[in-house]
Amino acid sequence: MKKDIAKKYFKCGPCERAAFEAGIKLGAVYHQFVGTPLDLDSVESLKNAIRSALLVQPFVEEAEVDIDTSEIKRKKGVYKYYTLKGEMLRIRVIIKYESCKVVAKLEYVEDMKYPLMFIEEVLRE
Amino acid sequence: MKKDIAKKYFKCGPCERAAFEAGIKLGAVYHQFVGTPLDLDSVESLKNAIRSALLVQPFVEEAEVDIDTSEIKRKKGVYKYYTLKGEMLRIRVIIKYESCKVVAKLEYVEDMKYPLMFIEEVLRE
Amino acid sequence: MKKDIAKKYFKCGPCERAAFEAGIKLGAVYHQFVGTPLDLDSVESLKNAIRSALLVQPFVEEAEVDIDTSEIKRKKGVYKYYTLKGEMLRIRVIIKYESCKVVAKLEYVEDMKYPLMFIEEVLRE
Amino acid sequence: MKKDIAKKYFKCGPCERAAFEAGIKLGAVYHQFVGTPLDLDSVESLKNAIRSALLVQPFVEEAEVDIDTSEIKRKKGVYKYYTLKGEMLRIRVIIKYESCKVVAKLEYVEDMKYPLMFIEEVLRE
Repeated sequence: MKKDIAKKYFKCGPCERAAFEAGIKLGAVYHQFVGTPLDLDSVESLKNAIRSALLVQPFVEEAEVDIDTSEIKRKKGVYKYYTLKGEMLRIRVIIKYESCKVVAKLEYVEDMKYPLMFIEEVLRE
Repeated sequence: MKKDIAKKYFKCGPCERAAFEAGIKLGAVYHQFVGTPLDLDSVESLKNAIRSALLVQPFVEEAEVDIDTSEIKRKKGVYKYYTLKGEMLRIRVIIKYESCKVVAKLEYVEDMKYPLMFIEEVLRE
Repeated sequence: MKKDIAKKYFKCGPCERAAFEAGIKLGAVYHQFVGTPLDLDSVESLKNAIRSALLVQPFVEEAEVDIDTSEIKRKKGVYKYYTLKGEMLRIRVIIKYESCKVVAKLEYVEDMKYPLMFIEEVLRE
Repeated sequence: MKKDIAKKYFKCGPCERAAFEAGIKLGAVYHQFVGTPLDLDSVESLKNAIRSALLVQPFVEEAEVDIDTSEIKRKKGVYKYYTLKGEMLRIRVIIKYESCKVVAKLEYVEDMKYPLMFIEEVLRE
């Protein structure tokens, strides 16, 4: 791993740091990309861009991005396109900081009717 | 061309409409994507996503997107990535509305030190 | 009016310019602010911020912003807040460029089920 | 405190949860508001809107927002306005989740030349 030149600013343990970094990444891409115009032809490039925007950030080891297009299929016409909503996003990101790994997700949760960001797993090595 | 179901709401000529639509597209992608984390590896996917987000919108006939990476090459380390700035964007979009075409650009203009959106050409057929 | 140092870059008439500037402003604030977390207590400050972000931009003479909160009232609980959707926004902006004024709007249009940006009026002096 | 209906989705302790929530909030407002047009007159309303957007989100107990305007004072003319950059933002947020409090900051850090998000303190009760 590359040297963390920001380390001296943090007053917390490695798992709290990893959880914090996971939150930043999910909060960032949600608010960066929600609102982007899209249709069925542009979904793939948008998924790639979101994934890339996750992977360039510090301590991201893995990133998976999917966009639920089930609602997109049902419209037609000149104003037929959509804008990305948080409810469509499915993201899974693995953050590794020193001895700790955090697996975090953004997923639309049916019983809350809410695009929830949550920690699925904390792995101490 | 597909039928414009929004036509009745507009009180203006076709070139003003085309100019308005051009402005929307440039204003939209600028404020949607500025701030996106990027590095040299992610530039290509971000360019594709911006271009796709332009092409899905009404009356866009052509769209070219470039990102100036000259400043990006000069950094290294764990916090080495960048965020997209307006100054890096080069966009050219052609809007066609009925008998009128508008060619519009977003470009960093040296003498103003400003990422300017402007109309390069209006073509009446 | 202050001198327009960008004038030489534009190849179009004053009304096309005004229409273009109107489009930029609406496209910009839509894609800047859609996605912002809000509840009934924060609506007022968000409206003010959007209006201010319109008024600082070139050639904006007037700006009115409203947010439709009718749907916001109906939720409760710890994850009770909303994010701003385009459908909630009502914006009216007047652009003046030289001899031409353009009145433009963003409004949710029922028969299109779409937050439409349109030109309500072009005034040549 | 209100009941956390999302609790069952989280596999982590209260401090990791609080750190995660802190990261979400900072990542969210950074990527939501960076790029917003501003000048000296609009700074106050933008600060209020960012603060409000923090306070409506789950588990935020306190939020302070400042925008460094030292560079803004030095420009004049029709294209005189600025857009918000991450470097201008100073944010301090306190997250409380069950028995744990996390104090997190976004601040431009001179020696990294970077707008750093970091955890200043973790308080277990």
